[in-house]
Amino acid sequence: MRVQVELCVVPIGVGTSLGQQIATCQDILEAAGLETRPHAYGTNVEGDWDTVFAAIRECHERLHADGVPRLFTSIKAGTRIDREQTLDDKVRSVAERRRR
Amino acid sequence: MRVQVELCVVPIGVGTSLGQQIATCQDILEAAGLETRPHAYGTNVEGDWDTVFAAIRECHERLHADGVPRLFTSIKAGTRIDREQTLDDKVRSVAERRRR
Amino acid sequence: MRVQVELCVVPIGVGTSLGQQIATCQDILEAAGLETRPHAYGTNVEGDWDTVFAAIRECHERLHADGVPRLFTSIKAGTRIDREQTLDDKVRSVAERRRR
Amino acid sequence: MRVQVELCVVPIGVGTSLGQQIATCQDILEAAGLETRPHAYGTNVEGDWDTVFAAIRECHERLHADGVPRLFTSIKAGTRIDREQTLDDKVRSVAERRRR
Repeated sequence: MRVQVELCVVPIGVGTSLGQQIATCQDILEAAGLETRPHAYGTNVEGDWDTVFAAIRECHERLHADGVPRLFTSIKAGTRIDREQTLDDKVRSVAERRRR
Repeated sequence: MRVQVELCVVPIGVGTSLGQQIATCQDILEAAGLETRPHAYGTNVEGDWDTVFAAIRECHERLHADGVPRLFTSIKAGTRIDREQTLDDKVRSVAERRRR
Repeated sequence: MRVQVELCVVPIGVGTSLGQQIATCQDILEAAGLETRPHAYGTNVEGDWDTVFAAIRECHERLHADGVPRLFTSIKAGTRIDREQTLDDKVRSVAERRRR
Repeated sequence: MRVQVELCVVPIGVGTSLGQQIATCQDILEAAGLETRPHAYGTNVEGDWDTVFAAIRECHERLHADGVPRLFTSIKAGTRIDREQTLDDKVRSVAERRRR
């Protein structure tokens, strides 16, 4: 099953600068062969359900191994059976309606 | 790895009454042997990472099989290595601080 | 406009124990006269849109004044014009379908 | 108080194609003079707290007036007092760490 995810990992207990941990997660997602679109509040990810969620688990495992004591992750997960639509299709769909 | 999840499944394309689909998800989570605490905006779930996310995937699969064309699910996922804390511990921790 | 909110405030940069800050937010929400239902991953809140969001802003202001350097808050906000439904109605609606 | 928001508005009860409603929200946010960065799962918004949340309320009011019976909106709201950081700074901060 294909899934589109919006992923936001928030490390807790390591101060207020979280860029390094987010970069680590980005590496993990890409190493898993997933389509990613980073944005200012997280990363959009597209792929097979099990691959996506195994990569998210790996983010938690790696960051804890790196010493992050607590993690708070927000995920939006979308699936649909009515038609196919990529991450980029979604952005285009809104942009096209605004141009009219 | 143990995880605490706040799960909110929103079926799209089946009208505005979503209680039946939410009840189906609740059945799936409990059949998976997971600790659940339903609330007005979703369900808190606690258990092994893989068991929890397999159950969430099953919610998507079952609802699509039941005819729901599109699903939008919000998940908060918390893990920690500093100490153990159950869902009920979290509620108690806040309540106790307010009593002081 | 009436709104039902699921609110989860995550203080960043104050260590891993966040119960005290959550308790402070709970006090603010209740002092604003809002209906609240705390759960293990946040608090459900119901009330007038402006009152609810003014209280959430006050949570941010108070916690920053108390020394929290960074806040990450997740909000689900639901409004509907098809019918009235309280927070407790939502829980009951799911529970009743499961009893059948 | 400055806030950075990740906003995702999900109309319920209008079928499975939601692009038109998302485009309407985008118009409202820009008309309010807010910085916006649309992505595949919503829009990042930056601005004064009250301006941002008034615009989000206007999205709900406008879509209900357009006939959407129910709305489910996810918001991440971030504030910080330790330093200034724009939406674009956040993306750059992660990208720079990955280049090392």
